[in-house]
Amino acid sequence: MPEDSFQHVSDKCTLYQGSYLSLHKMNIHLPDGRKGIREIVHVRDSVAILPITEDSVVHLVKQYRHAVEKTMIEIPAGLLDQEESLKDAAVRECEEETGYRPHKLEKLITYAHAEGYSTGFMTLFLGTDLEFTGKTHMDATEHIEPVNVPFKTLLRWVQENRIYDSKTLLSVHLVKNRYA
Amino acid sequence: MPEDSFQHVSDKCTLYQGSYLSLHKMNIHLPDGRKGIREIVHVRDSVAILPITEDSVVHLVKQYRHAVEKTMIEIPAGLLDQEESLKDAAVRECEEETGYRPHKLEKLITYAHAEGYSTGFMTLFLGTDLEFTGKTHMDATEHIEPVNVPFKTLLRWVQENRIYDSKTLLSVHLVKNRYA
Repeated sequence: MPEDSFQHVSDKCTLYQGSYLSLHKMNIHLPDGRKGIREIVHVRDSVAILPITEDSVVHLVKQYRHAVEKTMIEIPAGLLDQEESLKDAAVRECEEETGYRPHKLEKLITYAHAEGYSTGFMTLFLGTDLEFTGKTHMDATEHIEPVNVPFKTLLRWVQENRIYDSKTLLSVHLVKNRYA
Repeated sequence: MPEDSFQHVSDKCTLYQGSYLSLHKMNIHLPDGRKGIREIVHVRDSVAILPITEDSVVHLVKQYRHAVEKTMIEIPAGLLDQEESLKDAAVRECEEETGYRPHKLEKLITYAHAEGYSTGFMTLFLGTDLEFTGKTHMDATEHIEPVNVPFKTLLRWVQENRIYDSKTLLSVHLVKNRYA
């Protein structure tokens, strides 16, 4: 019997099937007899990569995020394509968004970004041995600008909370002892 | 004119209005004339708190997360109640989930947890000067178990990626130089 089978689920239904996400609802049954509902967003898993040169310059991207109504500076990131490996997706997103192809990848961590209501997992990589190919390619509805800064500047932005997405914050903290 | 007004939005509509979240859809118009859609989940903002004793013991909670179908060990967290301040919410959630009331709070950071499709912001606190009140109080559909471990153990779990929610990962990295 699986560890958590006591959290019985019933009456799962799909509320919305969209382009980027779908929404599902279900009843849950707790061990003590209580009942509740859960509304769960299904999204594809994603990857993000901190691409850094030998001189400790980081290639970031600036874009407007409609969900939070703000322009944010972030490490390159994107959704996994169907049957694509995490590493292939990280290399692809890095090249598409910055024009730099990383020849060396190091996996940093995998985490659930909104475990309360979303299925989505994010995997972070460090990307080094960067080759400039210039092969940028935005997704159909992306509008992205490059931002290239020394790691120390990025770390200061993180410490000042001028960076405020989980993937950039986490990746900077995970490698700061090597580059700061 | 606001900085990002070039990202014009039209035809906003509500697809679903639920108990914990609502789902909205809109058209976006990019500077170069391209159009796209965005599906955006509206959730209440949330807080999380890393409560730590003078002996560097951390009070964590273990719970089954239906969205990711896993049992996770996390720092206490929850949604803001209506008109509640971030600090009041952090104190309340800490006491409700662990039975310990923090008398000192330090704000660590605020971040968007799923900037691609969700409005939600999370604010992290460090909680010290803990008083045991025993006043635990689960939300109507919560089932939570306490997990109390030395900070060093928690740091090891983080390094081994046995912890994998953004709030616990980030808060541990933000204070590790003080407690490890």
